[in-house]
Amino acid sequence: MSSNFAPLKNDTFIKALLRQETEYTPLWLMRQAGRYLPEYRATRKDAGSFMSLAKNPDFATEVTLQPIDRFGLDAAILFSDILTVPDAMGLGLYFEEGEGPKFERSLKDEKDVHALKVPEAGSLQYVFDAVTKIRTALDGRVPLIGFAGSPWTLACYMVEGRGSRDFHTVKTMMYKRPDLMDHILRTNADAIASYLNAQIDAGAQAVMIFDSWGGALADGAYQRFSLSYMKDIVSKLQKEKDGVRIPAIVFTKGGGLWLDQIADIGADAVGLDWTVNLGKARAQVGHKVALQGNLDPAVLFADPDQVRQQAINALEAYGKPAANYGHVFNLGHGISQFTPIESVSTLVETVHEHSRKMRQPSA
Amino acid sequence: MSSNFAPLKNDTFIKALLRQETEYTPLWLMRQAGRYLPEYRATRKDAGSFMSLAKNPDFATEVTLQPIDRFGLDAAILFSDILTVPDAMGLGLYFEEGEGPKFERSLKDEKDVHALKVPEAGSLQYVFDAVTKIRTALDGRVPLIGFAGSPWTLACYMVEGRGSRDFHTVKTMMYKRPDLMDHILRTNADAIASYLNAQIDAGAQAVMIFDSWGGALADGAYQRFSLSYMKDIVSKLQKEKDGVRIPAIVFTKGGGLWLDQIADIGADAVGLDWTVNLGKARAQVGHKVALQGNLDPAVLFADPDQVRQQAINALEAYGKPAANYGHVFNLGHGISQFTPIESVSTLVETVHEHSRKMRQPSA
Repeated sequence: MSSNFAPLKNDTFIKALLRQETEYTPLWLMRQAGRYLPEYRATRKDAGSFMSLAKNPDFATEVTLQPIDRFGLDAAILFSDILTVPDAMGLGLYFEEGEGPKFERSLKDEKDVHALKVPEAGSLQYVFDAVTKIRTALDGRVPLIGFAGSPWTLACYMVEGRGSRDFHTVKTMMYKRPDLMDHILRTNADAIASYLNAQIDAGAQAVMIFDSWGGALADGAYQRFSLSYMKDIVSKLQKEKDGVRIPAIVFTKGGGLWLDQIADIGADAVGLDWTVNLGKARAQVGHKVALQGNLDPAVLFADPDQVRQQAINALEAYGKPAANYGHVFNLGHGISQFTPIESVSTLVETVHEHSRKMRQPSA
Repeated sequence: MSSNFAPLKNDTFIKALLRQETEYTPLWLMRQAGRYLPEYRATRKDAGSFMSLAKNPDFATEVTLQPIDRFGLDAAILFSDILTVPDAMGLGLYFEEGEGPKFERSLKDEKDVHALKVPEAGSLQYVFDAVTKIRTALDGRVPLIGFAGSPWTLACYMVEGRGSRDFHTVKTMMYKRPDLMDHILRTNADAIASYLNAQIDAGAQAVMIFDSWGGALADGAYQRFSLSYMKDIVSKLQKEKDGVRIPAIVFTKGGGLWLDQIADIGADAVGLDWTVNLGKARAQVGHKVALQGNLDPAVLFADPDQVRQQAINALEAYGKPAANYGHVFNLGHGISQFTPIESVSTLVETVHEHSRKMRQPSA
């Protein structure tokens, strides 16, 4: 089926992930299809709830393409949620208005943990259908990114039953019953590897693993309970589809201290949050991986000339284009729902314009 | 007055901060006087509210000494709150049951910011009275730590008006109106330097600056809006009192990536959260500063043998005692209110016992 998709017109993002030469620095924004867009809010209203939006391939296609239509972004990302996987495992994902996601059945004890199974065939078909539909609708304009949460990040929600500030419940299980934690993480890793490979089969042209809560772990625990399971997933991912490379990106928010180790798990690119110095990161691991990031999303609340200057600073911090450059511009975290749309236009224009300038021989 | 205090019997903590030889690794715990202790909860009930506890020198003395009486800790820390300073600036600190601290008058615009002044003389006298009372009550058993929040961390609360997850309001001001942000930070830094020096005059034997929210800043913004103001404070601190050195500790939670720069601002010691590798940190900056930390507080939810093992791992991670050793054991963040008391006993015993063992010639 994949071979029937339209040929890719803008492959800048894929090339940058593979550290190949590009005419400019590509960019996309985490959570780019979201509430800061009036057209997203309109579709969301039609859909009724977040989950009925995410579970309907037509709606998911519509909102995935909205930021692509509006801005000159260089990649689209599947509209979905990292918690679709534990939901398909039977934990009962739900959202209460004004609050974060919650699970009806969190993993409280040994019995819950041992009952956990990878999702049944078909339970995530709506995601793969959305991927194919979006890829078709994109018609080759930009590549489509598929994604999943990391095993540890999913475990945080699965054990806590909801978001958390200090993750005491999941960390208690981790320190007290590492055997149970490993069982959850093993199950998650298997489920996620299959899930991402099915997204690739359905049409995803790159994949990303979001380790949103890896940065809450202690040094040592991070490597043992988050990174090692991401490494396992990366090793199981299809590296090619129909002869075309499918790059993999891993992103641990708050993982800057572990950059060397993250760069060694076999992914093509590493996402960076805004605490990381881009120039140092490039010097440290740029010979091994591409780097994606890392503007503070709060910069977009400033005035256009300030947004422009901060974007230029970030590009210059990464440094002069050279062989194996490998920079994908992004925010250091998801875009805020309160972001003025003009800031996003300014950002996109500036990154494209200034990064082209940086590639001119005189620059 | 200070000269009338009893001589210090256990100076292990002070010596470790100054990287002098000690018989064992001293330890104390951030937020050691707190809700995990039944005797604290009893005093808190008597006092009525958190602020009437913190503002009453008798109550403050009582709770400061509670963990010293119960465990063999090597330092006491003034019972107070970092928000006493903006409260004394007239912002109206209050607590709502079950929620974090809030301000009645947050800094919303240019007018609010320019009206901001360092606290009037006498407005923080209750803190200095508490310091003197605690120091007297300690009777030289262990040294007393005074403390303050960092200029940036206080500004977060002063502009947001309360705690925050993403600090959008304060970051918007920082990116959009750096001049206003500098005015707040300048005022805070002046107020904090005076506040800490007055604590030293009143009897504090070491001081610590808590930069709880510095880790929310982007690389570059951290150095500009948090670290530089802490450096200014450290340069203004009394280095001695009555001929005795008063060590200064700085702690930016989430600041591990900036360790080199933090170690260069002139403080005697740097606090580390649990994401930092202790051995690497020692190799990196141990020749310049002592290091304090960094056990994950969630470890204390595990079983005693696991607590014991994790404490030993942390001591061994810091490495073999040698000249200028400079390790103060602590948690990487405040102790949780849900911590079992037995875990704290196990931790204290293990750290003392194992660190003595590490100093034996055969070890």
